[in-house]
Formats: sequence, C-alpha cells, structure tokens
Amino acid sequence: MSNKGKKSANIKDVAALAGVSVATVSRYLNGELGRMSSKTAKTVQEAIEKLNYVPNSVARQMKTRSSKMIAVVVSNVDDYFSTELFKGISAILESRGYIGVLFDVDSDEQRERKLLRTIGSQMFDGLIMQPANGPQTIIEALRRPLPIVTVDREVDHSSWPQVIVNNYEIARSVSRHFRQLGYTHAIVLTSEIKKARTRQERYRGITAEFNHVDAIEISELAHNHQATYRRLVQLIQATAEKTLIFCLKERWLLEFVPQLVFDQLIDNQKVTATGFADTDYAHQLEPRLKLISQNPYLMGGSAAELMLNQLQDHPQPADRIVIPAKFK
Amino acid sequence: MSNKGKKSANIKDVAALAGVSVATVSRYLNGELGRMSSKTAKTVQEAIEKLNYVPNSVARQMKTRSSKMIAVVVSNVDDYFSTELFKGISAILESRGYIGVLFDVDSDEQRERKLLRTIGSQMFDGLIMQPANGPQTIIEALRRPLPIVTVDREVDHSSWPQVIVNNYEIARSVSRHFRQLGYTHAIVLTSEIKKARTRQERYRGITAEFNHVDAIEISELAHNHQATYRRLVQLIQATAEKTLIFCLKERWLLEFVPQLVFDQLIDNQKVTATGFADTDYAHQLEPRLKLISQNPYLMGGSAAELMLNQLQDHPQPADRIVIPAKFK
Repeated sequence: MSNKGKKSANIKDVAALAGVSVATVSRYLNGELGRMSSKTAKTVQEAIEKLNYVPNSVARQMKTRSSKMIAVVVSNVDDYFSTELFKGISAILESRGYIGVLFDVDSDEQRERKLLRTIGSQMFDGLIMQPANGPQTIIEALRRPLPIVTVDREVDHSSWPQVIVNNYEIARSVSRHFRQLGYTHAIVLTSEIKKARTRQERYRGITAEFNHVDAIEISELAHNHQATYRRLVQLIQATAEKTLIFCLKERWLLEFVPQLVFDQLIDNQKVTATGFADTDYAHQLEPRLKLISQNPYLMGGSAAELMLNQLQDHPQPADRIVIPAKFK
Repeated sequence: MSNKGKKSANIKDVAALAGVSVATVSRYLNGELGRMSSKTAKTVQEAIEKLNYVPNSVARQMKTRSSKMIAVVVSNVDDYFSTELFKGISAILESRGYIGVLFDVDSDEQRERKLLRTIGSQMFDGLIMQPANGPQTIIEALRRPLPIVTVDREVDHSSWPQVIVNNYEIARSVSRHFRQLGYTHAIVLTSEIKKARTRQERYRGITAEFNHVDAIEISELAHNHQATYRRLVQLIQATAEKTLIFCLKERWLLEFVPQLVFDQLIDNQKVTATGFADTDYAHQLEPRLKLISQNPYLMGGSAAELMLNQLQDHPQPADRIVIPAKFK
C-alpha cells in the first residue's frame, strides 16, 4: 500500500478514468457530494483508489504555507487537565476552520524536544503548548519560526502569548481558609516540585500560610503506591495538629484520598483534604471536599483565541491571560 | 508572523548569511548539534529566523511521500483506555522512527468524518483508529488510499488489519462467575449500546448468562448524574435477588460505584459490581472489586506493529490480533 517510486496520477487522469469532468472530481474532493449522484461519487472514488491518486493539497500548502493544522503539545494525555485543555483548544480552532492535533510529552522533557523537532519540520501553522522545557530549548528544537502560545506553565520573560492560572494566589487563599478553620499542619502531595513552575507557585502559596508543611514528592514516571500511602499515614498520625492534605495534582488526590476516607483517616475534623481537581469523580468524593477548579477547557479556548490572533496577523497588546481558579 | 506572499529563502541563503557551509546548516537542521560549536549553532539559528527559512522537508515529502507521522484517531481522549492505547502506539512507532499524532473524535461520529477528511488531505503515512463509523464512511471521508489499522472496535469483513478484545467471551465468562456465586440480576451501566460493536458484544455476553438484565444507557455527550444514580438505586432496591452491577465502561464505574459504596448499597453480598477498567483508581476502590482489564497499552503496541508491517510492505497473512482481557 506504499507509493514508493510510482509516478503519481493527476486529477485529469482520475476524471478520464471515471469518465467525468475535472470539475466533478474537484467537487468530489471538496466534499460537495450533494452536487453529484452517489453513483458518480462512487465511480470517482474507485478511480481515485485505482490510480492511487493523492489530492494535491500538499502542493497547495507549498504555495499558501497553510495546513490549517495547529500542533498542541500537552504534558501528559493521562491527565484530565491536559485532555480538557485540548478539547477547549479544538473547539475554538475548529470554529475558525483549523484543526488541533495532539502530541503527548508523557511527562518527559527529552521527549518534548523530540516532538518539537518533528513539529518544526512539518506543515503546522502554529503551536500551542503546556511547556516542559524553557523557551531557548523550545526554539532550538523547533528550528524554525512558528506562531506559539504557551498555556498553564508560566514562562518568564516570554515573547509568546500565554494563558496561566493564578497558582500562587489561589493556593495561598485556600491555605488561609483552612488555617482560619484551625488547620496548622499541611501535607503537600505533588509531582517533583522543581520540575514545573506551576507546582513551585502553588507550593509557595501554601508555605506562605503554613509553618508546618510536609511535602511528599511523587514521580509521575514510576512510583510505589503503597510506600507513598504508608508515608502519608505516618505523617498524619505523627502529629496532634489538625492536618490539611493539599494535592497539587488531581491524579494524586484520586489515587490517595479515597483510600484515606475508607481507612477513616479523613473526617473533615482532625484531617481534611483539598487540591486542584477538575473531574466529576473528584467532586463526587464522599465526604464532600472543597476543591480548586481551574477550568482547563476555558484555558484551552483562550489559548486558541491568542493563536488565532497571531495567525490573523493582529496579536493583541497584552497577550497574557490569567484565568482565576475557583474554590468550591 | 505569517509568511503570506514572501518569496522563501533556501538553505544557501541561510549558509551565506550565517557565514558557514551549506553542510553545516544541513547538520544543524538534522539536529547534529554535537558536530558544531554552540556559537555556530546560534549563528545558524539566527540566520534561519531572520530569513524566515522553512526546512524543505515538505518538498522532500513530495518526493518520498513520507512524513513519518501516523495519524491516531481515538473515540475520546477523556477515556484512560484511549490515551493508554495512544501511549502504546507511540512507544512502538517511535522505536522505528515514526511519530504518533493524536486526533480526538470526542464521541461524535460526524466529527470523526471531519477529522478523516483533514487526515486524508495531509501528509500522514498511515492511520490507526478506534473507529466510530463503518469502513465505507471512513474510505469516503479519507478520499485517498492510506495504510489503515483499526483497534478496539471490531469491523466486520474488513480488509484492514485489526486488534480487538474478546469482548463477548470475557463478558460471558465473568457473568458466569457471578451467576455461580448466586447473582441472578444484572444491571448494565453503559453508553448507548447500538453505537459501538464493542458494547453490543459485551451486552450479548451478559444476556447469554443472566435472564434478568436491566440496561441503563448513558449519553457520553450529556447526562444527568443524579437522575441516573436514582434510577440505579431504584433498580437495586426493586428486587430481593442478588444483583451484579456490570459497567461496560470504566468512566461509568468511577462515576457511580464510589457513591454506591458510600451509600452502603454495595456490600459484595446482596449487591456487587464489576466492569471493564484499567486505571489504578478503579483497582484501589474499597471494597476491592474484581474487574476486567484490557491492557490498552499492549493493544496499541500491537496495532502499531501491524501498521509498521504495512508501511514496510510486508503485511502478515493473518492480520487480526485478539488480545484476551483479564479478570482479576
């Protein structure tokens, strides 16, 4: 089924073999099937297959330099946040004739560079990313200028438009809320803090309000659930203080909190939990927890708007959007 | 930042401006940065940006007809099954120099056709899909011959290699297991059954063992959680029979079972639950449930192997792989 070496047929060959006009083939290729009998459509389709004809939209791309495809690079497709981000991006892009295609960094910075090299060598019109690497690394990996929008992870001194969350402020105000309820000890469940600006900001917000903070850093690539759970239980039982378990990522909340509830370690009195979470599951946990929602779908939509501004050659002056997270 | 109308620079222009040889620019473009000083790399990069030079890999594609990108179309990126499938596909493809690019059908058949039209008009080397539409619709939407592998949802009389699960057999043997434990009533929690062959097979397996079966079909696009939950509770309480809640999709298991546990409606005596589930969360639910694991990662890897066979012009005779699901 490969085309190696074969001389490729053109639209005239297809029209000739199908016994129709070039205009009809062209209508077929543009999906205007309403304008021909299904019998004609079928004949054209068969001719296209027999001749192994490839529509010359690629040749067209060479001229217009547009594929109408936007590369979307997210940190991990296993995270609901990342996939919702993509759904929001896609919805807006598609309303304007573009298509978002998803690349998965799989929580691996090296992999991000590899994906960026591919994206840079292909016909994408733009790039929206939840960056793992810094700007210089990203530019070098792409090896060509491309309209870029970053989302979620703040990039300092960036020339690219970005959409971020008020991570520090929300983490701090939520911490204050629990401190005022008498909670003096915080256990932070998080992926490696230094690896993402988002986590650093959130952690900074928590430590600004709590003096007694224990951080449990979990590797996204490989971790021992039971060992982490035991550590968590030890930290809870090691103190008489009222303890808040603060999950910086929904994945860790869903992985550990239900088990703590089942083991009756979370009573919303001596021990409670909160965290960043957007799925229904998290909000349906019993006992009900007050959680931080970021609205990744809206963040994605906003990032897509910033991308469309660039593609249409009118970037806005202040291309930095902060979407405030909600505590509910 | 768009390139409208500009005459594009070529590699010689870049070499001239950077004051290096064309070979050096070419090494830079191939990522062989180890073979030049970082100063040289920087100079080349600046020349590329100044001239807005786009590597002519697209021109190369026109000749070789290869972008090394495989389009992967999944039914919904919010499903762990779909994202794990993609991770398995990517791992194998990348070990052989290809990159998997993800498209999200978002549980919408019309959307699948739209995505396929884009894929058909772009330079993808192949297509691996979890199909929502039938073969004829897929061929018409693509409008060009492309190596195709289907996965998860069985396609009848398909000329394409496919990777599937033994849906009927596993659903039936698991049903028998619970029947032998005295469960005589089954409540099936599922997305619209007629919309996916996978669900039809699983439902067939359950009804082959249980006489008393209630099906609750939930829309993936929009559903009322509380109404569905009330219906579920009514069905549980309407009978004195031992009831098995059988979730055909992990999403429904995670959305409803924890609440049933909290409301003490699941005791693993009068009422128990099982279903298709691959995430850690599902397997950590308390009380522990025996669940059906499909290993989407392995399914994806197998689909990628079948694709590589086609791309290397040696498709295997029996290109239909059945990955047996596990009950544990």
